[in-house]
Amino acid sequence: MNLSSKSKSLRIAVVGSGAIGSYYGAKLTYGGSDVHFLMRGDLNEVRRVGLYVRGKGENFRLAKVNCYNSVKEIGPCDLVLIAVKATSNGKLVDLVPPLMHEHTMLLTLQNGLGNEEFLAEHFGGERVLGGLCFICLSRISRTEIERYDYGHIVLGEYGRASQPRTHEVAAEFKHASVTCSVTEDLLLERWRKLVWNIPFNGLSILGGGIDTSAILADVALRRATLALMDEVIVAANKCGYPLPSAAALEQIKRTETMGAYKPSTLLDWGAGRPLEIEAIWGEPLRRATAAGAPAPRLEIVYALLKALDGSLPQS
Amino acid sequence: MNLSSKSKSLRIAVVGSGAIGSYYGAKLTYGGSDVHFLMRGDLNEVRRVGLYVRGKGENFRLAKVNCYNSVKEIGPCDLVLIAVKATSNGKLVDLVPPLMHEHTMLLTLQNGLGNEEFLAEHFGGERVLGGLCFICLSRISRTEIERYDYGHIVLGEYGRASQPRTHEVAAEFKHASVTCSVTEDLLLERWRKLVWNIPFNGLSILGGGIDTSAILADVALRRATLALMDEVIVAANKCGYPLPSAAALEQIKRTETMGAYKPSTLLDWGAGRPLEIEAIWGEPLRRATAAGAPAPRLEIVYALLKALDGSLPQS
Repeated sequence: MNLSSKSKSLRIAVVGSGAIGSYYGAKLTYGGSDVHFLMRGDLNEVRRVGLYVRGKGENFRLAKVNCYNSVKEIGPCDLVLIAVKATSNGKLVDLVPPLMHEHTMLLTLQNGLGNEEFLAEHFGGERVLGGLCFICLSRISRTEIERYDYGHIVLGEYGRASQPRTHEVAAEFKHASVTCSVTEDLLLERWRKLVWNIPFNGLSILGGGIDTSAILADVALRRATLALMDEVIVAANKCGYPLPSAAALEQIKRTETMGAYKPSTLLDWGAGRPLEIEAIWGEPLRRATAAGAPAPRLEIVYALLKALDGSLPQS
Repeated sequence: MNLSSKSKSLRIAVVGSGAIGSYYGAKLTYGGSDVHFLMRGDLNEVRRVGLYVRGKGENFRLAKVNCYNSVKEIGPCDLVLIAVKATSNGKLVDLVPPLMHEHTMLLTLQNGLGNEEFLAEHFGGERVLGGLCFICLSRISRTEIERYDYGHIVLGEYGRASQPRTHEVAAEFKHASVTCSVTEDLLLERWRKLVWNIPFNGLSILGGGIDTSAILADVALRRATLALMDEVIVAANKCGYPLPSAAALEQIKRTETMGAYKPSTLLDWGAGRPLEIEAIWGEPLRRATAAGAPAPRLEIVYALLKALDGSLPQS
């Protein structure tokens, strides 16, 4: 009988070593997990100097990071953390198979809607879990990650209630000092997070690069934020995910405590990185429309962001 | 008995010598009218080299332009063309009085809603006329104006049907080869023009600086344009100005014939000039709201433009 809190170690791969992948991969490594990072441009520098993580109450360096230039070098794992931009999902079709054995779990830590569906379609729904990352994070250099606030993950199974393995994965994060809870309804949580991301990530860009406190200080933008939140809540309800209408004001109030926060999409925009427009705005809009929920503001925000991004639909 | 088609000459002042003021002032001068321009920074150069006007089927130079550094030098006129940006209306309180005699007419050629009301409030409604300029124009240097398309004016009295003087002013423009018609309902025509300006001027800026053909070529933006037009039409109707719902599609079709056209506000934005946000979006939104017309898209476009412009409400 095994009395240890960790009965066996999961072999973990991280695909997508931006801010999210690097941070959670580093946390897991630091907590003793067996983590293997796929890296490209940053590989040599990370091998040479390691990874630094700084944030409220944490400050550590991983001197030795298991990083690789190809997924074949990593080989089969028990858990794959998917943290590429949703705009790069197409690459996963080739990247993921060498990492899989019969029971490999694929955990997407990406934003918005459609990512679990993408993985399910290509690799089978039974493998797929999703995680919502509530975190303010920035990768300030190839080897340094700065966490500004929060950090917790809400984990769930794709299309079903939690399983023993869901709790096993959550335990792996908790062991690494990452607050992690398990949800019985992943999609409900995704919609709840969109209530925040759809207005704040969108208006921060369209308003010319403004942070959350500038949005809330402007009477017209604050009203637009609330109205967008209401649209998302109505859409979620019509899609079968019960969110209370009070969720809008609650999120506004919580955001007021966050100070001048720049949403991740605004940081992407400022850095010239592609925006996850389809995952955050396009797919929710399509589901709202299909469910008969009116979403005039979301429609125009989506159209404008797509035009700003200057690209064709990305998924 | 005077058999001339012009029984007497109007003494005309032009306040605001941007593209619109310079163009119509130059046309009137070239047509033989007695025109006096208020100029500031451009005064010396225009005195030295005159004004050039180029466009489809016209190409002329005014060697001698009556231009002045102060309204006192101009003195009382029969007609004052008001062509400053609506954001500078406050300056009119001091600029206009020295130009007035008992029967001076004030003709605003400005965009949007609220300009006639501003003039009426400060100088008396009986003096006020409004003109809608349908023109694609650019002031390409201090002394050169280029007209790309159109040019006609729709004239009307503020708050009443046309008067003999309205037709006299129209005749002055026609005499100068400017197509000019008289409307019996100026505000109806202002709303009709807003059906175009509200979506195209707004989306061209918020979409990152795109022209009308780019807006119409993008499925989502085209849909947003039509939906915004519908909101404006419903608002106009609720405010008592009957515009048919077919006006939206008609304007889209007409715009398709215009090619890649950059709305005036986009040119202002590109040149770092202030935007007429309150006249084009703010005031129509306030009137829509007061009349109980839902305008969620206009609301968000207004909020975003105001944030982009980075300024407090301008009127």
